[in-house]
Amino acid sequence: MPSARSHKETLFEIIFESDTHSGKWFDIALIICIVISVAAVMLDSIPSIREEYRTVFQWLEWTFTILFTIEYAVRIYCVPNRMRYIFSFYGLVDLVAIIPTYLGLFITDVQYLLVIRILRILRIFRILKLTRYISQAKLLTDALYRSQEKVTVFFFSIFSLAVIFGAAMYIVEGAENGFTSIPKSVYWAIVTITTVGYGDISPQTGLGQVIASVIMVTGYSIIAIPTGIFAAELSQVIRKEKLSRVCPGCKKAGHEAKANYCDDCGAKL
Amino acid sequence: MPSARSHKETLFEIIFESDTHSGKWFDIALIICIVISVAAVMLDSIPSIREEYRTVFQWLEWTFTILFTIEYAVRIYCVPNRMRYIFSFYGLVDLVAIIPTYLGLFITDVQYLLVIRILRILRIFRILKLTRYISQAKLLTDALYRSQEKVTVFFFSIFSLAVIFGAAMYIVEGAENGFTSIPKSVYWAIVTITTVGYGDISPQTGLGQVIASVIMVTGYSIIAIPTGIFAAELSQVIRKEKLSRVCPGCKKAGHEAKANYCDDCGAKL
Amino acid sequence: MPSARSHKETLFEIIFESDTHSGKWFDIALIICIVISVAAVMLDSIPSIREEYRTVFQWLEWTFTILFTIEYAVRIYCVPNRMRYIFSFYGLVDLVAIIPTYLGLFITDVQYLLVIRILRILRIFRILKLTRYISQAKLLTDALYRSQEKVTVFFFSIFSLAVIFGAAMYIVEGAENGFTSIPKSVYWAIVTITTVGYGDISPQTGLGQVIASVIMVTGYSIIAIPTGIFAAELSQVIRKEKLSRVCPGCKKAGHEAKANYCDDCGAKL
Amino acid sequence: MPSARSHKETLFEIIFESDTHSGKWFDIALIICIVISVAAVMLDSIPSIREEYRTVFQWLEWTFTILFTIEYAVRIYCVPNRMRYIFSFYGLVDLVAIIPTYLGLFITDVQYLLVIRILRILRIFRILKLTRYISQAKLLTDALYRSQEKVTVFFFSIFSLAVIFGAAMYIVEGAENGFTSIPKSVYWAIVTITTVGYGDISPQTGLGQVIASVIMVTGYSIIAIPTGIFAAELSQVIRKEKLSRVCPGCKKAGHEAKANYCDDCGAKL
Repeated sequence: MPSARSHKETLFEIIFESDTHSGKWFDIALIICIVISVAAVMLDSIPSIREEYRTVFQWLEWTFTILFTIEYAVRIYCVPNRMRYIFSFYGLVDLVAIIPTYLGLFITDVQYLLVIRILRILRIFRILKLTRYISQAKLLTDALYRSQEKVTVFFFSIFSLAVIFGAAMYIVEGAENGFTSIPKSVYWAIVTITTVGYGDISPQTGLGQVIASVIMVTGYSIIAIPTGIFAAELSQVIRKEKLSRVCPGCKKAGHEAKANYCDDCGAKL
Repeated sequence: MPSARSHKETLFEIIFESDTHSGKWFDIALIICIVISVAAVMLDSIPSIREEYRTVFQWLEWTFTILFTIEYAVRIYCVPNRMRYIFSFYGLVDLVAIIPTYLGLFITDVQYLLVIRILRILRIFRILKLTRYISQAKLLTDALYRSQEKVTVFFFSIFSLAVIFGAAMYIVEGAENGFTSIPKSVYWAIVTITTVGYGDISPQTGLGQVIASVIMVTGYSIIAIPTGIFAAELSQVIRKEKLSRVCPGCKKAGHEAKANYCDDCGAKL
Repeated sequence: MPSARSHKETLFEIIFESDTHSGKWFDIALIICIVISVAAVMLDSIPSIREEYRTVFQWLEWTFTILFTIEYAVRIYCVPNRMRYIFSFYGLVDLVAIIPTYLGLFITDVQYLLVIRILRILRIFRILKLTRYISQAKLLTDALYRSQEKVTVFFFSIFSLAVIFGAAMYIVEGAENGFTSIPKSVYWAIVTITTVGYGDISPQTGLGQVIASVIMVTGYSIIAIPTGIFAAELSQVIRKEKLSRVCPGCKKAGHEAKANYCDDCGAKL
Repeated sequence: MPSARSHKETLFEIIFESDTHSGKWFDIALIICIVISVAAVMLDSIPSIREEYRTVFQWLEWTFTILFTIEYAVRIYCVPNRMRYIFSFYGLVDLVAIIPTYLGLFITDVQYLLVIRILRILRIFRILKLTRYISQAKLLTDALYRSQEKVTVFFFSIFSLAVIFGAAMYIVEGAENGFTSIPKSVYWAIVTITTVGYGDISPQTGLGQVIASVIMVTGYSIIAIPTGIFAAELSQVIRKEKLSRVCPGCKKAGHEAKANYCDDCGAKL
């Protein structure tokens, strides 16, 4: 069956790649569908708009869900390594992007989870040939990956701090000042350490305000820690990446990520 | 017409440059006009003051608008390359700085947009010969330009996060706790991720507070990312700028931006 | 008494180390106890849950306290250097983790301080052989230690600023706008400088809002200082640690913390 | 009059230096006076405490003011270069620390400005021979001084942004949503850009919330700029300081600020 194979291959080129003319148009159409469908879900949640356009939104939701379901089936059909696609990041997002509509038949309000479709737009970087953006995103992810262990230690410390300070505030302020339980006080401590500060709960007693000040200054200064970690790792990743760009002509290393030609011998990188 | 040409050139020197005596005085007068006109617009918006001085403010607004309109016309008249001026940053600001008054004849409240005139003060850096400030501003802009791609990727991720978390909170908290629609919940998610935290909307249910805590800690840690990016790029820009300062005497490179003399042979840089 | 000594040593291996089979299981059991006991204390503080399960929680609290008391006694019994253990960080945490229950017999609400037990979970890093995490935590602590003097200077400046700005706001705004005393105004100034911004107290007069703006911009820019200090110190610590990793084979220095083999001669590091 | 001169010199040693026994005790007594006097001013502002101890606080205030006035007079008397002392930072603080009490005879509430006395505690760094702290503070000040031009450009941009965004919000939201005038809207824009977010004023309309989101994300990302500037400058200052520490024995440069001995030849630095 050479014809069937080439049929599959053509489909693969159109759906998964964007080098061909039809592949490009397919991707652009897909992105337009995604944007419209996410916008529809968001507008659908505004009471005054829902009242008026309920049927339009339901029609849109089902249309896009069926389209995306067909697309998902075709993707599985034409991809060479099925398991790898299904359990890849994009494969899972493609699946999660259609489930809520079907779930909505049984459970109420679940259809709003369709906004997860916005993650499918990440494909836009691939389509628009924004490889530079992808390589930049990779730099960030690398630096994040390298910071991972330090950041885990950091988060565990933050959480411990929030629990201990939260319990202290629960004892000091008590339920009459809004600190109705330790879990709620821990929530307040996180709101404070992260310097968000809603103000829905705030200390009223003198001692409580002193403890709160300590928490705030602590939070304000430990904000420095993840920044420092990330900045240090990022500059190492950037240096490494520069060193790994070697000119094919004169073998000079250390070219910048944006350089297209070797600044020594002029050869294309 | 050599006289006409020199007339144009004299005007150009006065209006666009500030090396001559009259050029300097023109610029200083212009800045005073800008400051007074912006202050007038701001004061005009305070109800108690507007009541009393309404006519004074209207008179000021029209006087400055007419002055700036004449100035704009003269600028176009005397500039050698008209199109380039009109579509330059300063040319557009000069135009936008006079339009709102005329629009105000037809539409109400538009005159407050006159505060855009404050951007014209950016000329102050040029007039006061604060070239060092300009070169510093250029360093910052360079670093920002170099961070651009990484920052675009970063903002797209932030926005996706806000949409997904916003939809989740809309389902969990619902309209009775202030999360009346997904767009409003997305607004809340942005307020939280950026650690602004107005507190006009805040989670009331236990699950909502847990999700909110996750958003806050996420926001608190990703604050590190643009800082890391910018710091890494800025230090590269500063290093480059130092390397590009070569002593004309002994050819030593690597002088600091603030150095006026070569620290090796003493030649003026 | 060789048997007594080896008995002590066996206990020491089980309780303090986690290389043996029983040592590992002891540690895992301990962590489960800690998690359950902290969760019980937190849930106990929620009024609706306390009503229903009061006796369960009291029973849990006393069970765990007695277990931890026995464990503490056995630790003191089998550790070779008793004084060093008792006054070590873990020794003090182990003691503090049992005291509140006994204090609770005399003073009300103190039992909530039991959440301090969460600090005992720090042992988890040791048990799971997460030595890499420990070495990362050490990097952070080193950088913090090196930043210590700069940060002390910094905090003293912040506190002085808060006192002076707080007193100014007390005079400008006065008790009728919520600034009822200087200590309270200082609390407000700290809330503002750290960009937490609860909004429980906020300036109402024009002059007060101008001063508040100055405080905010000050706080916003000095956030840069601890970050800068910490980032600079952390990158020095990381560089030093890399330099101190010398290959036993070829003596090449400068291996990364994550590297397991020398990238030059392939010897195990 | 050699005796008079040496009398002056003895006074100078006691008051201005802390190498002698009496000089040290004078400084410690002074610091205790400052702390008590600032604490008294702060407590005096709490209504319930003022009621009860009014006479105590008035007596304390006048006692300390008279003591500090005498001290100021003696300082002027015994200092060799009077003008230089009077117009130095400490000289001005010494003067400002006594004026408010005398002003309080004519104007009400001014005595609270006495908290400015807290700045006199900065002498503590000198007394406790915390020269290392002073040198660290100098590092910070140096880095701040080097960042100065970049930061000026940065603040002017922030202020322009706040004015333009403030005016836009005033038009969009209007007085009925709390944006009663442009100055107040500018205040709100500053509260938002700095991520303080009191929530006393917050956007209510959809368009207003979209503009607010843009301001927040802008503020969130430009927080990176001063941090990046400061971190880059600080690391340059630290590197320079290391290079300037040269071993007197073997002339090796690049010793760390904390090193007491040359790590190459062991000579004292």
